[in-house]
Amino acid sequence: MSLAADLSSKWLKVSEPAPHVLHIEFARPPVNAFSVEFWSAYGALFDRITTEGRDVRAAVVSSGLPKLFTAGIDLADAAKITEGGLGGVTNADGARSALALRQDMKAFQHAIGAPERCPFPVIVAVHGLALGLAIDIVSACDIRYAAESAQFSIKEVDIGLAADVGTLAYLPKIIGNHSLMRELAYSTAMFSAADAERLGLVSRVVPGGRDEVVAAALALAGVIAGKSPVAVSGTKRILLHSRDHSVADNLEYTAAWNAAALQTHDIPESIAAAKARRVPKFAALRKAKL
Amino acid sequence: MSLAADLSSKWLKVSEPAPHVLHIEFARPPVNAFSVEFWSAYGALFDRITTEGRDVRAAVVSSGLPKLFTAGIDLADAAKITEGGLGGVTNADGARSALALRQDMKAFQHAIGAPERCPFPVIVAVHGLALGLAIDIVSACDIRYAAESAQFSIKEVDIGLAADVGTLAYLPKIIGNHSLMRELAYSTAMFSAADAERLGLVSRVVPGGRDEVVAAALALAGVIAGKSPVAVSGTKRILLHSRDHSVADNLEYTAAWNAAALQTHDIPESIAAAKARRVPKFAALRKAKL
Amino acid sequence: MSLAADLSSKWLKVSEPAPHVLHIEFARPPVNAFSVEFWSAYGALFDRITTEGRDVRAAVVSSGLPKLFTAGIDLADAAKITEGGLGGVTNADGARSALALRQDMKAFQHAIGAPERCPFPVIVAVHGLALGLAIDIVSACDIRYAAESAQFSIKEVDIGLAADVGTLAYLPKIIGNHSLMRELAYSTAMFSAADAERLGLVSRVVPGGRDEVVAAALALAGVIAGKSPVAVSGTKRILLHSRDHSVADNLEYTAAWNAAALQTHDIPESIAAAKARRVPKFAALRKAKL
Amino acid sequence: MSLAADLSSKWLKVSEPAPHVLHIEFARPPVNAFSVEFWSAYGALFDRITTEGRDVRAAVVSSGLPKLFTAGIDLADAAKITEGGLGGVTNADGARSALALRQDMKAFQHAIGAPERCPFPVIVAVHGLALGLAIDIVSACDIRYAAESAQFSIKEVDIGLAADVGTLAYLPKIIGNHSLMRELAYSTAMFSAADAERLGLVSRVVPGGRDEVVAAALALAGVIAGKSPVAVSGTKRILLHSRDHSVADNLEYTAAWNAAALQTHDIPESIAAAKARRVPKFAALRKAKL
Amino acid sequence: MSLAADLSSKWLKVSEPAPHVLHIEFARPPVNAFSVEFWSAYGALFDRITTEGRDVRAAVVSSGLPKLFTAGIDLADAAKITEGGLGGVTNADGARSALALRQDMKAFQHAIGAPERCPFPVIVAVHGLALGLAIDIVSACDIRYAAESAQFSIKEVDIGLAADVGTLAYLPKIIGNHSLMRELAYSTAMFSAADAERLGLVSRVVPGGRDEVVAAALALAGVIAGKSPVAVSGTKRILLHSRDHSVADNLEYTAAWNAAALQTHDIPESIAAAKARRVPKFAALRKAKL
Amino acid sequence: MSLAADLSSKWLKVSEPAPHVLHIEFARPPVNAFSVEFWSAYGALFDRITTEGRDVRAAVVSSGLPKLFTAGIDLADAAKITEGGLGGVTNADGARSALALRQDMKAFQHAIGAPERCPFPVIVAVHGLALGLAIDIVSACDIRYAAESAQFSIKEVDIGLAADVGTLAYLPKIIGNHSLMRELAYSTAMFSAADAERLGLVSRVVPGGRDEVVAAALALAGVIAGKSPVAVSGTKRILLHSRDHSVADNLEYTAAWNAAALQTHDIPESIAAAKARRVPKFAALRKAKL
Repeated sequence: MSLAADLSSKWLKVSEPAPHVLHIEFARPPVNAFSVEFWSAYGALFDRITTEGRDVRAAVVSSGLPKLFTAGIDLADAAKITEGGLGGVTNADGARSALALRQDMKAFQHAIGAPERCPFPVIVAVHGLALGLAIDIVSACDIRYAAESAQFSIKEVDIGLAADVGTLAYLPKIIGNHSLMRELAYSTAMFSAADAERLGLVSRVVPGGRDEVVAAALALAGVIAGKSPVAVSGTKRILLHSRDHSVADNLEYTAAWNAAALQTHDIPESIAAAKARRVPKFAALRKAKL
Repeated sequence: MSLAADLSSKWLKVSEPAPHVLHIEFARPPVNAFSVEFWSAYGALFDRITTEGRDVRAAVVSSGLPKLFTAGIDLADAAKITEGGLGGVTNADGARSALALRQDMKAFQHAIGAPERCPFPVIVAVHGLALGLAIDIVSACDIRYAAESAQFSIKEVDIGLAADVGTLAYLPKIIGNHSLMRELAYSTAMFSAADAERLGLVSRVVPGGRDEVVAAALALAGVIAGKSPVAVSGTKRILLHSRDHSVADNLEYTAAWNAAALQTHDIPESIAAAKARRVPKFAALRKAKL
Repeated sequence: MSLAADLSSKWLKVSEPAPHVLHIEFARPPVNAFSVEFWSAYGALFDRITTEGRDVRAAVVSSGLPKLFTAGIDLADAAKITEGGLGGVTNADGARSALALRQDMKAFQHAIGAPERCPFPVIVAVHGLALGLAIDIVSACDIRYAAESAQFSIKEVDIGLAADVGTLAYLPKIIGNHSLMRELAYSTAMFSAADAERLGLVSRVVPGGRDEVVAAALALAGVIAGKSPVAVSGTKRILLHSRDHSVADNLEYTAAWNAAALQTHDIPESIAAAKARRVPKFAALRKAKL
Repeated sequence: MSLAADLSSKWLKVSEPAPHVLHIEFARPPVNAFSVEFWSAYGALFDRITTEGRDVRAAVVSSGLPKLFTAGIDLADAAKITEGGLGGVTNADGARSALALRQDMKAFQHAIGAPERCPFPVIVAVHGLALGLAIDIVSACDIRYAAESAQFSIKEVDIGLAADVGTLAYLPKIIGNHSLMRELAYSTAMFSAADAERLGLVSRVVPGGRDEVVAAALALAGVIAGKSPVAVSGTKRILLHSRDHSVADNLEYTAAWNAAALQTHDIPESIAAAKARRVPKFAALRKAKL
Repeated sequence: MSLAADLSSKWLKVSEPAPHVLHIEFARPPVNAFSVEFWSAYGALFDRITTEGRDVRAAVVSSGLPKLFTAGIDLADAAKITEGGLGGVTNADGARSALALRQDMKAFQHAIGAPERCPFPVIVAVHGLALGLAIDIVSACDIRYAAESAQFSIKEVDIGLAADVGTLAYLPKIIGNHSLMRELAYSTAMFSAADAERLGLVSRVVPGGRDEVVAAALALAGVIAGKSPVAVSGTKRILLHSRDHSVADNLEYTAAWNAAALQTHDIPESIAAAKARRVPKFAALRKAKL
Repeated sequence: MSLAADLSSKWLKVSEPAPHVLHIEFARPPVNAFSVEFWSAYGALFDRITTEGRDVRAAVVSSGLPKLFTAGIDLADAAKITEGGLGGVTNADGARSALALRQDMKAFQHAIGAPERCPFPVIVAVHGLALGLAIDIVSACDIRYAAESAQFSIKEVDIGLAADVGTLAYLPKIIGNHSLMRELAYSTAMFSAADAERLGLVSRVVPGGRDEVVAAALALAGVIAGKSPVAVSGTKRILLHSRDHSVADNLEYTAAWNAAALQTHDIPESIAAAKARRVPKFAALRKAKL
């Protein structure tokens, strides 16, 4: 069974449109509503690729539905929350309800944050409506592209809660205008792809809709997949560390990291290929376990 | 006595232009110069609203003077600094002068940082000149709007000191261009509303002057005041935490925070109101103490 | 011997185009390739100015070559890396190679980060090609100007490694779009001066080439050199601290710092000069040691 | 009115047994139960001394009751907690109750942590029973002495809650055996003065009871009160910073702090007095404001 | 099938000697050498209890072998390390070997740190030899008891490596003598139970051997299991947070945590039981999922 | 010239009593007073060993004078402090004096902290009087031994200042009783070797005086020098990181560090030597540069 077929599941269509490039599509009509089962599958997919040592070098996440990215969390799950826990626990003791909710939230956060744990970059390509949980998903990816048609909203406040699976943790660190960020978070106002670029949330607005933005993201993924996976995965890990630590701390960590990474064969291969004006060839990061 | 009348003081005009929306205006002609008494009153106002449990859900800060926001610190106070302490202490012992100055600076910082401590968002609407302390005040608010007429300057270097009540603490975290930030801080160059937007300092430049920018800010405040105060105040607290902590730390904190917050009645009320296409009704955060 | 002549070295041309303003030019044809000797001299220059207490109040770094800023690291040095260490150590023990590499990297990082350690602002003026190490050098400066002609690339991934002397440590903190930053870091795509401004990396794009961008940077340096060095150096130190600490931590540090700094003569001198509409005169930060 | 009389309040007896030495005694029979009013007065006392610039150089905190230090929180207040908030708020909305409780807890924490905010060392002298809140109070002081008679218990778990006003925040940083700390915190086991010393919680076990331990603490306070207040307050501030920051961060902060502090007259006075074998004389830290 | 039988596995004997008390015994003769399979099972056991919501309130970890706790890592696994990865990966590319090793180490660290992630306290009871990995295991538990017979050694340096699954991460934070810690870590010297107590590593030295130390640990577990699980688990979570954060950060986190926890029924139940001099009854933390 | 002779300087006698073991003795009669020149030489010695890649595997620091370790800072230098700067700067501008002092303090801190930067453990052996700066020196070493005759005092407060070159930065992290630490720091009380052990400052009190404590330290150094330098230096680096970071941060750093370190030949050599019951042979960490 091909890698892509093997990794696909009920609501996640996985394909390998180019060598080492994975395309992951949300496919839960009508609005890609995320239930516990859906987000668990999403997180598990990334962790499985890493654990199994699959030779993936870049991935694109997008929606397979024509009109939207995702309307966010599944309404039925939201209803369960008010009964005392995402996992369906009902308990009249406020502290116990809280402990159960906390445990469920941490599992939810862990799933949505999965792209961060894998060694390759994840590019998200957004078109149409991207509401609520969409922003958490988008924020946890490495690179964000939006179609002109994209419409975003940090919607959680409208159902009476603060976003808790990533939006508020990532945004203050990855964008360039805290005033706009707070305005959007408090007001739940819809914002366009152009606004998202102005905020610093997306790096490219692609004219058109789903097909165009996905094509652009796949093109970028193809470029990245041709680079040394030792170099790219190291760059990713160091940038993640840098986001959360001081310059001095990061330089110390980077020195420890690169002390091993600089012993890679990819350096002479890169230099030799450049001299010979040929495409370099890089081995997988590790022998696949499956 | 109305809430607004009760909260007004010598140089701070407070009104309640819409339910749960507070408008705070600086009114110390000719240039809204901030003396110790003025900034103390400014900080005390926010702390009092919180302590008394007033049902405020959004506030707008602006200048009531037609031509400017504020020219910054009061010159007389600046003179006192050189005598050995903002509080007027004179002492020939460099260490004792320093200790007195430090104590006074911390009180000053505490006052200007008051918007951060209250549970509702504070929107600042700037028009005309906004110099020196203006940037500290503006930076400590949640959301920043500027009239086209606004002119900013990080002026402190021009009187021989480094800004110490917020500008330098907040700016590196809330904007998107450190090079521009440093250029403006070292050179004290005047910058326009458009520059402020380019820097990432303001989220909206409003055509016109005082009336237009205040109207825009009040409109946003009105929108926010209609949202669940549990959701908005939680979003504010979590974003403040996120600004200062790593993603992992913030997710842990958010899980602890929302473990209680998700037990709010505002969630079923929000969902019910949305289904019925009616305006949701939310209770105050706590029973007022006064 | 003049200060400038005294500080110049083989590949670093130093001049003093205005009082207290230093101009440092890279001059290693054909491509300003940075060898160990070159970067060591670069770092040592800044440290020497500080240690000797030279009365420099602003510096401009640029390339003296007509077509480019720098093509990055010297190829011969890159080859040495694969032999087991920047310092030329060859050792078949992976751990020992790693320890040697780490020690060399830390020396390299220390050299490139030198602008941060000196008390005056460093403005970098970029024109033409700026590849690889160029971004590390640029990121470690206070202020970044680019000529229209500038072309940047975070090139390291193309030779199989992750940038380890500053780019990845600084960028996540000083720009406004993490998505664009990662795209550029993973793909090694060339980006223009306009892109650099959109990313938040440069604060000004100067029409023209080398001469124009250097002139603009020197003009800014001249403005800064006219300000109180106590105020400017304090602002720099506090901004550096703020970048790496929480708001609360920074306010505490700032209070300790300014407790001494507010006792400067520069404050009354600044105020007196402003009243008399004359240029203020400021003493050097400390008596020169040489 | 004397300083001591002026500072005394209903349940806090304040005396000045030696110049610049304050003795603060809990006096709320039968068990020094801490109500909101009591702990508020406790915190306010320290803050008032600092704000008013009183020339206090060391303080001793102890219980005026013969048999115990304190049995902890007032039972009536504990009952109020279960009704929805320490401040007496009742609210069936779990999130609103939580927000009210959080606000009250922060005020409580602020009061108990007051000794940390004042510039002089606070020595706590414990005898008899010291339960629950006693450990929070004790942990927030600078120095801890115990009479042989002292009996401690981290009692909170026995009423169904986790200690939240200091015990769990301070203990992991100020003692030398985390295993013992957790054992005592989970089990609520009573521990002796000797156990407290073994844990690293107290620095001296004084044979006898209240009188003996208070005498020993006052003797130490007297020694400290004879030292330079610039040196002692600086040492306190730097140690507090060091507890919560890395070595590198603390050295940077200390350099900023001492840059001013080293300019004190206390240094030549100390050296001159030592040479002349006389007692040095030191000025107050700042001119009293009242 | 009983809880205990259900949780037991090849080398881990699990029993429930008292209600809500789990006893976990290492049983891999002759020396409890930890292979990948063994440590994976150890970590999975704790995670499974948490995920399944089992009503465990305290656990004791000990060795079922008469003469020793554990001799540490399995020698066969150590050999595999030198071939390029704990997971058996062989690769001549130093960087790829490093990345594989890092991934395996993180899985190993995750397993050994499992006691930290569960909501109940874990008491480790050590007798006989406790070498290498033993110290990692012991350090990651909440409470440490040692039999008089216990002999410890931080053995890793003797096989040419630095301990990387917990010892060096935990020890600097949980003991009271860094000089002794380093001496033992560098020299690999054997140290006695009394030395361990002097170091602050264990809280109790129990006369005798395995039976005596296990009996003491089970007695303590029994006491803890009788307490409110809301209070105990909250205390554990807050202490873990406190170990790694500043006092101010921890107080903020604790306020968020307890805002929900103080709404527990365990508080009135605790108070009522204390008044009635009866044993309180507490519900499980959450409904079991299996 | 032998290594030892080469490294010796005016007041620092260096010998190599065993292979790879360095003995560094303070030799500035009558009281080993530390002048700028003396402490600069002390710091430079360690940095030079590291930079030159000398094959040192453990060092012992002690005093060559019969009666004392050191009386601390040189009195003449202390006098210079009050004139405006350790470097002899005199300046009536409080801010400029402060900046000069800060720069000098940082150089001083850098020198005293040198043992931390070298890859081998440094054991300090203290006898007789150890005052003021002695505690800074002692705290910055890896391991501390004291002769019975040792007498310590954190003396700085007695000359009107707070210790600023290490004592206050290190002590809160490396000992086990903050109460005792503060008591000693505020009171400047003399404390014995036994007190130092109770505090957690020293790991061993050696009966006798200088000769005995030096012999014990050299014996330990000999043991450490026989271990794998890859393992020992890694353990040192990881422990230093752990002291200043959270458990999670340290585990991440350790995984990056050991990813390279586990590829060392020292592991198979260690295992082979253990099996053959012979002494293992380890190569130097890197080829010496001189």
